[in-house]
Amino acid sequence: MTTHSTAAAFGRQDGRLSVGGVPVDRLAERVGSTPFFAYDRQLLTDRIALLRATLPDQVKLSYAVKANPMPAVVQHLAGLVDGLDVASALEMRTALDTTVPPDRISFAGPGKTDAELRQAIAAGVTIEMESESEAERTGALGRALGVRPRVAVRVNPDFAVKGSGMRLGGGPQQFGVDCERVPALLKDLERADLDFLGFHIFAGSQNLYADSLIEAQRRTVELAVRLAGESPLPVRYLNLGGGFGIPYHDKDVELDLAAVGANLADLVAGPIRAGLPQARIAVELGRYIVGEAGVYVTRVVDRKESRGTTYLVVDGGLHHQLAASGNFGQVIRRNYPIGVAERIDGDPDETVTVVGCLCTPLDLLGKDVSLPRAGAGDLIVLFQAGAYGLTASPTAFLGHPAPAEVLL
Amino acid sequence: MTTHSTAAAFGRQDGRLSVGGVPVDRLAERVGSTPFFAYDRQLLTDRIALLRATLPDQVKLSYAVKANPMPAVVQHLAGLVDGLDVASALEMRTALDTTVPPDRISFAGPGKTDAELRQAIAAGVTIEMESESEAERTGALGRALGVRPRVAVRVNPDFAVKGSGMRLGGGPQQFGVDCERVPALLKDLERADLDFLGFHIFAGSQNLYADSLIEAQRRTVELAVRLAGESPLPVRYLNLGGGFGIPYHDKDVELDLAAVGANLADLVAGPIRAGLPQARIAVELGRYIVGEAGVYVTRVVDRKESRGTTYLVVDGGLHHQLAASGNFGQVIRRNYPIGVAERIDGDPDETVTVVGCLCTPLDLLGKDVSLPRAGAGDLIVLFQAGAYGLTASPTAFLGHPAPAEVLL
Repeated sequence: MTTHSTAAAFGRQDGRLSVGGVPVDRLAERVGSTPFFAYDRQLLTDRIALLRATLPDQVKLSYAVKANPMPAVVQHLAGLVDGLDVASALEMRTALDTTVPPDRISFAGPGKTDAELRQAIAAGVTIEMESESEAERTGALGRALGVRPRVAVRVNPDFAVKGSGMRLGGGPQQFGVDCERVPALLKDLERADLDFLGFHIFAGSQNLYADSLIEAQRRTVELAVRLAGESPLPVRYLNLGGGFGIPYHDKDVELDLAAVGANLADLVAGPIRAGLPQARIAVELGRYIVGEAGVYVTRVVDRKESRGTTYLVVDGGLHHQLAASGNFGQVIRRNYPIGVAERIDGDPDETVTVVGCLCTPLDLLGKDVSLPRAGAGDLIVLFQAGAYGLTASPTAFLGHPAPAEVLL
Repeated sequence: MTTHSTAAAFGRQDGRLSVGGVPVDRLAERVGSTPFFAYDRQLLTDRIALLRATLPDQVKLSYAVKANPMPAVVQHLAGLVDGLDVASALEMRTALDTTVPPDRISFAGPGKTDAELRQAIAAGVTIEMESESEAERTGALGRALGVRPRVAVRVNPDFAVKGSGMRLGGGPQQFGVDCERVPALLKDLERADLDFLGFHIFAGSQNLYADSLIEAQRRTVELAVRLAGESPLPVRYLNLGGGFGIPYHDKDVELDLAAVGANLADLVAGPIRAGLPQARIAVELGRYIVGEAGVYVTRVVDRKESRGTTYLVVDGGLHHQLAASGNFGQVIRRNYPIGVAERIDGDPDETVTVVGCLCTPLDLLGKDVSLPRAGAGDLIVLFQAGAYGLTASPTAFLGHPAPAEVLL
């Protein structure tokens, strides 16, 4: 079995994997169908507690709903974090259905439509504006609605973050306003009827290297202080983004969260206190909060041999867990941690290749993995399925039923 | 503007692209929202006519519903082709709702569940069995239902096809029964209560090279003849698969369909007449039939500059057209043909990068493309969107509304 740290974090009963105290095979009966996603409430709670214990109190926690917008997950996290970040009108509705006040909800994204902006203005959430023209539209829509929009400026920094899985800042970007143009925009905002709060500066996601994150956060704070110095309006908000990565593969390191926390404490005590004394500081995390708290469970339909390879064909596949198949933006496919639910810590008996039920060779969930022997009817578990799983997958591909999601 | 052959195949009105005779900007009003997919009925009809004119009469045409399962598209094609191929119970229901008789519907896929097999047996469709154990299950379920299942054996050949976008045969595979094990399976089938029809042998998809397809079809027929010679049961069906590719990128060649058709005529007149005299021969095409008949239409929300790059941010993105973003199994991202609907043949004014509305750098629809000037409100058209578009994309990603699909 995999010795991946995530697999170890879930419970066991009689050698079987459990989620929220329920063995996965019993859970499959409760759900009534496979495949399904199961998220562990306690692991979510533990992760927030870890973040609270490690990051300074002055740094507020925002949950990026896009990582996992299941309403039950968002409701649970809403009671634990300080804010929510949304990327669409639907995510905003989900966030507004929680007890998080609208002014602790931020809405980012480079292509907000007028309809979305109207909804955001009416709701009173913080619009993280991505361009000068979005600022103009937001002002005009606010006047039309008779509501003063709460806004922040998303800034495209003049640096990139090394080691990020995805780069969202530095060089030319569709995200945010280039930092060198922000001072001119701020002068315009002073004249506009907008409630300017501050900045969102975020340079890259899925980063496992504390050194890189530390450098990015230092440079982000420096940039924010510099921009605040040129701002005619007080800066009351700084969203540092997130980018805290989780280890998907055997060779991935675990992020040194303590080092990141210590650096944030230094930043809060130093440049932030000096240069941004009024600012509410937030980090916005999605994957880091939910990614390791979820599993994808799928049942073996067929066990077959082909020219020396043993295949386990399961009833799920890339239509539910695209990233695990290596086909969502990844250049090199590597296996996600995988196990047999009923013999989760069993010694491996054999090397098998686990494939989904779709009629495409892309539908590969585990290539040459060492597992205890499994056959038709057994349950295969894919770990690291809590973030960017179901909603980041082509669920309608080939027309199979949508999987259930449960939180327990 | 793109000079891509697909773009040229659609109509024009006053310099605007039209689909089914309706200018796309007017169509956007009719649909009532953007983004949307539009499929051109006449282009579908023309493509089938081209295939009928080029392939020998003895080769029957089957449409692979998975390429585009929109019911209106399937209904239209059902009136033009000889059969339908499905990959799930939902696709089977869509196919059964047409006038195509059940015995002209085939059901393939490596992970068919018992529930799906029961539905297929009850419907009387042809089950293309992917393993010995699936054969056993099919037999048992047929006995339980009191219905004799119609079956074919999907064969994993002992050769691969050069030049395929995806390989589905040769070496170890999750698809089909290795050809060297087929004779033993056929002996078992003789004793089972199954209505054995023949074989499905298919080695690779999205192939643009006639030479490769010709070699694959020759070897496929040779293999089928050899297997028929060892079969205790008559072979009444041979599904040669498809694999006919379409050109997505500027440097892609167009498939020489005439050469493929001439080869099929030789095969029909030669080895098929001699070795498979009773067999109904079919090719199964999806992408080749629908891929070039569809466009994805999305509206520019923002036009922005960032450090020397002009971005057009549109209201669609990879959540609807994942393959066009280069993130669905592609190793190297290349642009799909793209245009400005209102100035479809206009000379390019500038080089821009077209991005979707999602908050991820993966959401890239056209990098450094030459287009007539476009800004907020203009409609951007992505071609080659008729196959593996909407259903092969993560529609729920970030929670934006699902796009409409129209056939006209």
